[in-house]
Amino acid sequence: MSRRVTGPEIERLVQLLARLPGLGPRSARRAALQLVKRKDQLLVPLAEALGRVGESVRVCSTCGNIDTSDPCAVCTDPRRDASTIVVVEDVSDLWALERSGAVDARYHVLGGVLSPLNGVGPDDLDIAGLVERAHDPAVREVILAVNATVDGQTTAHYVTDRLQGLDVTVSRLAHGVPVGGELDYLDEGTLAAAIRARTPF
Amino acid sequence: MSRRVTGPEIERLVQLLARLPGLGPRSARRAALQLVKRKDQLLVPLAEALGRVGESVRVCSTCGNIDTSDPCAVCTDPRRDASTIVVVEDVSDLWALERSGAVDARYHVLGGVLSPLNGVGPDDLDIAGLVERAHDPAVREVILAVNATVDGQTTAHYVTDRLQGLDVTVSRLAHGVPVGGELDYLDEGTLAAAIRARTPF
Repeated sequence: MSRRVTGPEIERLVQLLARLPGLGPRSARRAALQLVKRKDQLLVPLAEALGRVGESVRVCSTCGNIDTSDPCAVCTDPRRDASTIVVVEDVSDLWALERSGAVDARYHVLGGVLSPLNGVGPDDLDIAGLVERAHDPAVREVILAVNATVDGQTTAHYVTDRLQGLDVTVSRLAHGVPVGGELDYLDEGTLAAAIRARTPF
Repeated sequence: MSRRVTGPEIERLVQLLARLPGLGPRSARRAALQLVKRKDQLLVPLAEALGRVGESVRVCSTCGNIDTSDPCAVCTDPRRDASTIVVVEDVSDLWALERSGAVDARYHVLGGVLSPLNGVGPDDLDIAGLVERAHDPAVREVILAVNATVDGQTTAHYVTDRLQGLDVTVSRLAHGVPVGGELDYLDEGTLAAAIRARTPF
């Protein structure tokens, strides 16, 4: 806008909101307006929540999860199976697996995937930390829950190599038809994998 | 999540972000993660921007625009044509019209539309403020830039009635084919309006 229509403080807020994933310039403006209109119910609580998270947030030095304590709630949960480590690329994957309720173990966040094209090498990921944790005799299995992308699979192979010689089983997620998925909409690679890995009915 | 995976501060942040228009629970989680990861570049500046907006934001007592000053920047801009008032439903419409660059006048934000079904009557909108402003002899035209919905048009008729007897021209936005729009995708009502309001080529 060439002419000033609203305050620079509001424009600044719109710009920052537009940097959030999922919000473009237009939706950021709508969000800012909503925040301003619902100041007491939304704007003030959000400002406070951001402040509190900013003060208290820690990256777990063991697994890389984001929490307000270090070690994090997952690493210190005594009910979890300490013999299994689920390796993920990103904290968002850890949270997604937790939502599935299928994991009762500990995690290790690599912080990305190997990607020579993007200049991401082994030293950019927390692979050393994983190898160190896998040396613990209590650890019996490492589940590679990386994305089914080329970079993800390259990373899985590299991590497997680095764990060679240790007394741990390395496994990976099953490929197959997504639950609720329709065959007609699936790619050939997934269908082929699902056929190969068929199970008795 | 039944088990605690991350801090309650972060969960609270996710809940608040999910209340913003355009963000659902999943994208709110991604946004929260992004904020935490880019704490210094994003989380801290956003918390500060929210605080500053919360302290400084005002609703213009003349037109209803949201700004950090009252009267707002639009109402106090001496280069704007003070003889025309563009009536809009919401502040977002004011901002949208400003982005078009086609308005060089003042605005009046009604704060909604008449909607008997939703219990919105004339007293819930700032119609009295508009009528008072239209009494000013300097005001020559009122442009009704309300949405082309049933409620919007009902509101336009009601406002026109209330302005009856004053020495102002009341006009409304043209209906027609959106610029860049394809006829095949337009509804019959728009096409009929565009034919009726055809202009010499």
